[in-house]
Amino acid sequence: MKERILLKAEALFWKFGTRSITMDDISRDIGISKKTLYQHFTDKDDIVYQVMLYRLDKNRENVSCYMAMAHDPIEEILLASEMMRQHLAEMNPALWIDVQRHYPRAWEVCTEFKEKFLLESIRNNLKRGIEQALYRPEIDVEIMARLRMELIRMAFDTDVFPRGVTAMIEVQIQLLHHFVRGILTEKGILIYNQYVKEHQNDPASTTL
Amino acid sequence: MKERILLKAEALFWKFGTRSITMDDISRDIGISKKTLYQHFTDKDDIVYQVMLYRLDKNRENVSCYMAMAHDPIEEILLASEMMRQHLAEMNPALWIDVQRHYPRAWEVCTEFKEKFLLESIRNNLKRGIEQALYRPEIDVEIMARLRMELIRMAFDTDVFPRGVTAMIEVQIQLLHHFVRGILTEKGILIYNQYVKEHQNDPASTTL
Repeated sequence: MKERILLKAEALFWKFGTRSITMDDISRDIGISKKTLYQHFTDKDDIVYQVMLYRLDKNRENVSCYMAMAHDPIEEILLASEMMRQHLAEMNPALWIDVQRHYPRAWEVCTEFKEKFLLESIRNNLKRGIEQALYRPEIDVEIMARLRMELIRMAFDTDVFPRGVTAMIEVQIQLLHHFVRGILTEKGILIYNQYVKEHQNDPASTTL
Repeated sequence: MKERILLKAEALFWKFGTRSITMDDISRDIGISKKTLYQHFTDKDDIVYQVMLYRLDKNRENVSCYMAMAHDPIEEILLASEMMRQHLAEMNPALWIDVQRHYPRAWEVCTEFKEKFLLESIRNNLKRGIEQALYRPEIDVEIMARLRMELIRMAFDTDVFPRGVTAMIEVQIQLLHHFVRGILTEKGILIYNQYVKEHQNDPASTTL
């Protein structure tokens, strides 16, 4: 039951943001009584917090899966980014701002996920890529890892990429492929070109 | 006389920011009376504004020189970035924040310079690079031009690149070379590698 509530609540937050959704909305949407809802969660703050924990755990699992599935660091970064892109595409952009301003506990686990898990995963990817001579040995792992994190955020930033000028999905795809191309060695470029042909079946990406 | 005042005032602002410098400081530093200073400028706001106009005109001239000197778009972007890097290296980081908050007329010409001249120069560089098959035809000129503008700003952003972790000059060099590598074709990479060997004589860059 708890997981079902978390998934439903997440879908509501994802679509409408956290602020406009009440405990009533959540219980009505799932078809349970408010009493049942309060058996699992103390209040909305608690639901937002636990949804965030749940989602970030799933993200950690997914990243581990991609790391196991991928044949090399290049495929890993392409697969993980594609997963993230699909996931974020459905999100209400107001959600992050809501959480940052009004749900400090949830925001804290989110920040920790970014600063510890995500940044560390990117660092590891870069180090392995350099070891395997797929990424250029001159790149500074720390600077490039932080750049990649910032690029993920930047794609949503309408001050940098005004919506009238560019579509967000195209911005994300361009920033990803530009980032990857920028770190590759000549050997890496050959492998990258093959993955682009094989993996990217959606029309927006096949141009790359 | 006016140009001499502008250059001296700029040097003071560059080093100490605008807020702590008074009309007295400027006249004393140049060795002229305040009366003479006020013959050329109505107040400090006017000096800040005219310093900004003067500097941005010089920047436009410099960029034109680099475009004339450069053999191709790759050399152009490397030379222009090196000029900017050297120029910004001497700047008090508080200066931009001071100007943005307290000198709206000066900030407006600065924003116009960035949005019109700089962005347009980068767009032109990218278009010519694609035409000459040095830059990948898949890159979106608008997105990449805005990315480059944001990367210039980002190198100063201590939230993204904390100073304890990375030195600013190394961040700028890494972001520049990563940006350029990310847009190059295989043909472009060959030419780029030659320029890196020839032009970059400072120790921090020769590793690239």
